[in-house]
Amino acid sequence: MANSATNLRLKLPIACIILEVIIIILFGALVQYDDETDAKLWHKEIANGSSNYDNDFYYRYPSFQDVHVMIFIGFGFLMTFLQRYGFSSVGFNFLIAAFALQWATLMQGFVHGMHGGKIHVGIESMINADFCTGSVLISFGAVLGKTSPVQLLVMSVIEVTLFAVNEFIVLSVLGAKDAGGSMTIHTFGAYFGLMVARVLYRPNLDKSKHKNCSVYHSDLFAMIGTIYLWMFWPSFNSAVTAHGDDQHRTAMNTYYSLAACTLATYGLSAVVAHDGKLDMVHIQNAALAGGVAVGTAGEMMLTPFGSMIVGFLAGTISVLGYIDITDTNTQKLKIQDTCGVHNLHGMPGVLGAIVGAVTAALATKDVYGDGMADVFPDIHSGDVEASFQGVRQAISLAVTLGIALLGGLITGFILKLPIYGAPPDTICFEDGIYWELPGEEGSHEELTTVRTPDEAEKLNA
Amino acid sequence: MANSATNLRLKLPIACIILEVIIIILFGALVQYDDETDAKLWHKEIANGSSNYDNDFYYRYPSFQDVHVMIFIGFGFLMTFLQRYGFSSVGFNFLIAAFALQWATLMQGFVHGMHGGKIHVGIESMINADFCTGSVLISFGAVLGKTSPVQLLVMSVIEVTLFAVNEFIVLSVLGAKDAGGSMTIHTFGAYFGLMVARVLYRPNLDKSKHKNCSVYHSDLFAMIGTIYLWMFWPSFNSAVTAHGDDQHRTAMNTYYSLAACTLATYGLSAVVAHDGKLDMVHIQNAALAGGVAVGTAGEMMLTPFGSMIVGFLAGTISVLGYIDITDTNTQKLKIQDTCGVHNLHGMPGVLGAIVGAVTAALATKDVYGDGMADVFPDIHSGDVEASFQGVRQAISLAVTLGIALLGGLITGFILKLPIYGAPPDTICFEDGIYWELPGEEGSHEELTTVRTPDEAEKLNA
Amino acid sequence: MANSATNLRLKLPIACIILEVIIIILFGALVQYDDETDAKLWHKEIANGSSNYDNDFYYRYPSFQDVHVMIFIGFGFLMTFLQRYGFSSVGFNFLIAAFALQWATLMQGFVHGMHGGKIHVGIESMINADFCTGSVLISFGAVLGKTSPVQLLVMSVIEVTLFAVNEFIVLSVLGAKDAGGSMTIHTFGAYFGLMVARVLYRPNLDKSKHKNCSVYHSDLFAMIGTIYLWMFWPSFNSAVTAHGDDQHRTAMNTYYSLAACTLATYGLSAVVAHDGKLDMVHIQNAALAGGVAVGTAGEMMLTPFGSMIVGFLAGTISVLGYIDITDTNTQKLKIQDTCGVHNLHGMPGVLGAIVGAVTAALATKDVYGDGMADVFPDIHSGDVEASFQGVRQAISLAVTLGIALLGGLITGFILKLPIYGAPPDTICFEDGIYWELPGEEGSHEELTTVRTPDEAEKLNA
Repeated sequence: MANSATNLRLKLPIACIILEVIIIILFGALVQYDDETDAKLWHKEIANGSSNYDNDFYYRYPSFQDVHVMIFIGFGFLMTFLQRYGFSSVGFNFLIAAFALQWATLMQGFVHGMHGGKIHVGIESMINADFCTGSVLISFGAVLGKTSPVQLLVMSVIEVTLFAVNEFIVLSVLGAKDAGGSMTIHTFGAYFGLMVARVLYRPNLDKSKHKNCSVYHSDLFAMIGTIYLWMFWPSFNSAVTAHGDDQHRTAMNTYYSLAACTLATYGLSAVVAHDGKLDMVHIQNAALAGGVAVGTAGEMMLTPFGSMIVGFLAGTISVLGYIDITDTNTQKLKIQDTCGVHNLHGMPGVLGAIVGAVTAALATKDVYGDGMADVFPDIHSGDVEASFQGVRQAISLAVTLGIALLGGLITGFILKLPIYGAPPDTICFEDGIYWELPGEEGSHEELTTVRTPDEAEKLNA
Repeated sequence: MANSATNLRLKLPIACIILEVIIIILFGALVQYDDETDAKLWHKEIANGSSNYDNDFYYRYPSFQDVHVMIFIGFGFLMTFLQRYGFSSVGFNFLIAAFALQWATLMQGFVHGMHGGKIHVGIESMINADFCTGSVLISFGAVLGKTSPVQLLVMSVIEVTLFAVNEFIVLSVLGAKDAGGSMTIHTFGAYFGLMVARVLYRPNLDKSKHKNCSVYHSDLFAMIGTIYLWMFWPSFNSAVTAHGDDQHRTAMNTYYSLAACTLATYGLSAVVAHDGKLDMVHIQNAALAGGVAVGTAGEMMLTPFGSMIVGFLAGTISVLGYIDITDTNTQKLKIQDTCGVHNLHGMPGVLGAIVGAVTAALATKDVYGDGMADVFPDIHSGDVEASFQGVRQAISLAVTLGIALLGGLITGFILKLPIYGAPPDTICFEDGIYWELPGEEGSHEELTTVRTPDEAEKLNA
Repeated sequence: MANSATNLRLKLPIACIILEVIIIILFGALVQYDDETDAKLWHKEIANGSSNYDNDFYYRYPSFQDVHVMIFIGFGFLMTFLQRYGFSSVGFNFLIAAFALQWATLMQGFVHGMHGGKIHVGIESMINADFCTGSVLISFGAVLGKTSPVQLLVMSVIEVTLFAVNEFIVLSVLGAKDAGGSMTIHTFGAYFGLMVARVLYRPNLDKSKHKNCSVYHSDLFAMIGTIYLWMFWPSFNSAVTAHGDDQHRTAMNTYYSLAACTLATYGLSAVVAHDGKLDMVHIQNAALAGGVAVGTAGEMMLTPFGSMIVGFLAGTISVLGYIDITDTNTQKLKIQDTCGVHNLHGMPGVLGAIVGAVTAALATKDVYGDGMADVFPDIHSGDVEASFQGVRQAISLAVTLGIALLGGLITGFILKLPIYGAPPDTICFEDGIYWELPGEEGSHEELTTVRTPDEAEKLNA
């Protein structure tokens, strides 16, 4: 019965509470304040001449909060475009993000090196945990409407772990740069999610087709998500770059890339959409591709000119993706990509990785000066040539794609087990299956019917 | 007649304009720029070796803006869940917050000590005024839908005044710590509002029962409020703590508490809600209890582990509160708590006070080092033992409860006077009584009826 | 045919892509990183003793992001009040803002002085570009619902250029102060837009009258815009003032002005609106006039007292404007001002200019101390008397009005050419003409009809 299958009374509490208890135990055993959040350690630094104003809180926290808004409002509302899936879009986004940021703190702490057996936490770990969460939410976009919250939590457990492994290989082993995560966040999240969607392919999904579309107000709610992502993307890409010119330049490059991307998106949307009108799907998604595509090169000396070219290209391929590849994916590749994450995060992420590799390969001491030490420390120290840094970047893209696809494959099969309360094909894209819904009929009548004369009189009084 | 009784033509202008004129006169007589906002005084500090970059604006203003968003968007939209009370929720929230922050500047200035007969204002007074405003908005949640804007302004006048008195007793006389206001803001606002709601008890409120519920889109608007409160709560709790590790640690503790609280909320919601589905009421409210519950202890060395346990507990009692205590309140205690502020602010606030008392009592020099001077200056100076600091905290909770309940009682009776244009029992939870509403029928038809062939042709052209 | 006339398939792509290509070429030829964003140049400053923490990014970027939110969310959603123009309000706002900020970077760079033939960009140029964009969006408000996106892009090209010229004359030639842009942004944008609306007067616009109004949820979306503008206006006015006391004081003055303005708005709305109820039009707009009106004087020693008086006056004239002048404008002056920008930006902008002139004329060394050097450098250096600074401010207002009106006139005639795909009089204020709309009927039925027993059973399972 649908009844017992999708009822969450036991499944969700067990998942949430077991996971949270494990997290709390691990935090109790392993997690400590870092030097900047611990009262005693920080005041030792003060005693050694530091000022409270040097605390990294003041140089990272505003960026963190912008990233936080992107994760919870941006991703959450971007997915409310479905007419009848707003509770789940915002609500499951909220749940898995709140889980993933805790789990990511642990996983990233493990692989990025412990300090005397302990994981140290502070503003940087908070930003990095939000970044990892972003990757999970991208994958969520690919399976939106077709998964139960328990499936999503299980997916998060695995994806966060693999994210941390991949990030470690790319940044620490291979020595690639990827401050805004074109590879580690966007490419990884997109291809992981697409592979999960492939394994979870539902041949009879067209039974829910009438719900897999937007209505007027759901598209407006989605625009809240889009605009917040667009505005704060400069903060996202610059949140963990080196202080000084690096953060400043990264934010500005991203700002220009997004602006150019937006013009390309509007121009192309009118070309490809029905009847020479604009299509909200493009505006909501493709206009953001410029942020994805400078996620790697944004901190480099890409120049505003270069940033705009990248943004323009990203918007172009993203809009084109929405006409062509979405259909191809669904029919030939059997990937039902609800939000079109391939067009927003997948292809622009790969573009961003390539742009990053090329820009790195072209880095010269003449252009970067002593700033080379922040952007490419290994080139600065003479350990590698710029061209080899470009090769490292390219290898990192390949590694990321490999881990994402393989990880998504395995995860997909795990999520296929019939124990998580997934919705049947006939009731996908529907909040009512997991949420108590307010009574629409009565209330709707309230909003629209002509009132009784008595009531009207009172109201108009 | 309902007509004359709820017509605001005279009542609201008189209230608004008299109050604003009084405020302007008092500001003219008493308020001055502080050292950091006055051109002359600040440049004296510059002459003495300060840098413009040392101005506290840069270390508090981002937190202030986050708090500001919580007050105006967070609280405002959280209350839009009612199907037909969105204008009033956002609009009255806006009005009383704009009033309260001005009045709070004066009242907090009076009781916290004048400087040569003058109240000095700057970024800290702005944050503190917003905090006090938050307390008023919590009380607003308890009486939502059943009060006129004039009543709300009168309530604000009294509540802000008592808030300032209580805050002075707790922080200055008793020497308690309460940076994020578990006691002074949440406990105070909740029990003040509940007592007002008790006195204003309406035995016939079920005549408006059909409007005291949500519709699909009103719940989505409410989620905007929830998510903003959730995201920026770390800024709220850390906004006025000491610079350096204190702000950093407080923000992080709050972040972990909220994340753990969210998992507990989702897990328990599925247990207690109808049919094993999730209930939006829990998600919108209980997921925030973790922020309330670390309002006192957040700046202490609570550890991420401790913060998560507190958050988990807070989410748990808050969800349980929504099933049990709400009904008990309404039927036995005769308290009609529209938003369930007892579950979101009341119980978690008391929990936060207790956690604060215990954490304070356990403070040791070994853990805090020289940081003790910032968190517990009296323990650091040797004036009190840690255990006595715990006692101070506990007494502060009792004092806060006493002043809140007594103040709410008196305020309730003042608000009962039939001169404020309160709505009749039959038209509560209804915007139309105080707002000109757009014509729904015609416009609704516009949105839904099939167009005439002519129109359709033009549109599809 | 309406068909070919409003079809964007060729017009919009040509406009977007030609403009973006021109911008990219000009950026490639002319734009360079400034000292704080260029890796090499910044590290030269580091080598000379600067710290990464001195980078202006940390002292301007939080303000920039607040301004950015005002531009994209604030203006965008403020205009969603129309029942059937939400896609266009948010979407065209997004398009022209993304274009204008790039074009403004170039135009402001040209007129404000090049550095060795190059335009230098960094966080200040980003803020100034957003400011210029704000002016264009104000004009957009006057012609909302009656223009095609191509017209809006053409308007932006001209308006941005004239904005930069006017700004140069006012700030650099005349030496006036206008940090928050009462003159350069609000007065300019409003009168430019009103003149464009005058030239584009449509005698038969009442054929679309039934769509030129709000519905319940569209008013709630608009409140998102209002509240964000209101909250972040302190950041707007202070974003480019001098560091230290100036930014701090400007933000605080704006905060008080807005609070007082809000009380005046609510009080007067109840007086003038129908039946003694509140009118959303006033709340959405007039409550913001306080921010406009301290755009010039906010950085001066206006005092909180003075700020509140200004805010109170601004709210008053703005509400009165909505009853009286809107009708006069439409019928006698033949200006169809969709959003009432005359009441929100026009009159309060002029008020702000006058307040600025008076406050400047009253500046004394006794009050400003050495801070005079930041606020009025020419008075500080003895080049001009305070009274003459007041005269400069007044002349600047006149110049701004002249350039705005003349520029709007010319622009209006250019926009009248029948080549831009403007909507016919019968289909103004209607998204469907430029946007693919989601199918309302089917989906609406989905939301409201009683489900079949089978479906209901599954849902309730």
